[in-house]
Amino acid sequence: MKDKIYFITGNPNKYLEIKKIIPNLEMKTLELDEIQSDDSKQIIKHKLNEASKYFPNKNILVEDTRIHLDCLNGFPGPFIKWFLKKNSLEKIYEMSYKLENRNIQVKTIIGYRNSNQEDYFFQVEVKGIIVESRGRNNFGFDPIFLPEGYIQTFGEMSKEEKNKISHRGLTIKSLKEFLNKVK
Amino acid sequence: MKDKIYFITGNPNKYLEIKKIIPNLEMKTLELDEIQSDDSKQIIKHKLNEASKYFPNKNILVEDTRIHLDCLNGFPGPFIKWFLKKNSLEKIYEMSYKLENRNIQVKTIIGYRNSNQEDYFFQVEVKGIIVESRGRNNFGFDPIFLPEGYIQTFGEMSKEEKNKISHRGLTIKSLKEFLNKVK
Repeated sequence: MKDKIYFITGNPNKYLEIKKIIPNLEMKTLELDEIQSDDSKQIIKHKLNEASKYFPNKNILVEDTRIHLDCLNGFPGPFIKWFLKKNSLEKIYEMSYKLENRNIQVKTIIGYRNSNQEDYFFQVEVKGIIVESRGRNNFGFDPIFLPEGYIQTFGEMSKEEKNKISHRGLTIKSLKEFLNKVK
Repeated sequence: MKDKIYFITGNPNKYLEIKKIIPNLEMKTLELDEIQSDDSKQIIKHKLNEASKYFPNKNILVEDTRIHLDCLNGFPGPFIKWFLKKNSLEKIYEMSYKLENRNIQVKTIIGYRNSNQEDYFFQVEVKGIIVESRGRNNFGFDPIFLPEGYIQTFGEMSKEEKNKISHRGLTIKSLKEFLNKVK
């Protein structure tokens, strides 16, 4: 599929990451209202509906990423944006260290609505542990996220390396395979 | 003002508390979509707008309560409902203990829209510290909340005692004084 896809986001970092995999992507800057829910699919559907009001009959893409910290019993989940606003990466590391559990899972869910108003969902979860901040590449919590089975944090990897194994990269790859099939 | 006021909530405990202060209250059970925001007033306005769709031209009341834990740098804030779903009170106490900061603030904001579509907002914050769970009265985080200057947790107080000094009780009292004036 070579038609334009509108990616609705307030976060240019996410756009740059995804554009490397899906070149026919175009960023549309909108801070959509996000509802409070622990059901990712419900949040994503609500985002698709909101975005459709602005771009009816277009191919649109919305994304939601959440982190689950075992030391907070799964919190902050979808409230990651607010959590990172309040807490530095150093503070999050310290929290997991003092609470004696550094396990973290990160999950991306993608909602894609094509111009025929058909919806498709893709999601991937990646496990890791929280480490002291390392590297300055990429964004968000990347410097403290050490993916399971690797020795570099996402903050130490190039965009390409991160995309190969990351929650967002793998989710977008599923979408890409799907788009290749529908032609 | 003796006209009926519709209190829109999914939480009967909150209704019972407020009804003790405002007898002409009627509960309307609706789980309104709540947007993600760290701006209480924005959340409350969105709730009022949602509720108005169901009860146009009525007096409606919506409420939002948030807790700020110093040990999480202010989190969970408005996401308290989800935080309490994931974390037991024991776990929250343990968190604040291990992170060596037991300060907590709790804030209620009330939005009142009268039948002429005029909006009024009231809010009160109460400070306290987190203690080991004590008492089984009231609800939510009450058993671990020790208000500043008191020796009983909200969980050990009667509804009346709690209402006199609590975030929600004091906010509702401001509303009541306002309603008495408008007659």
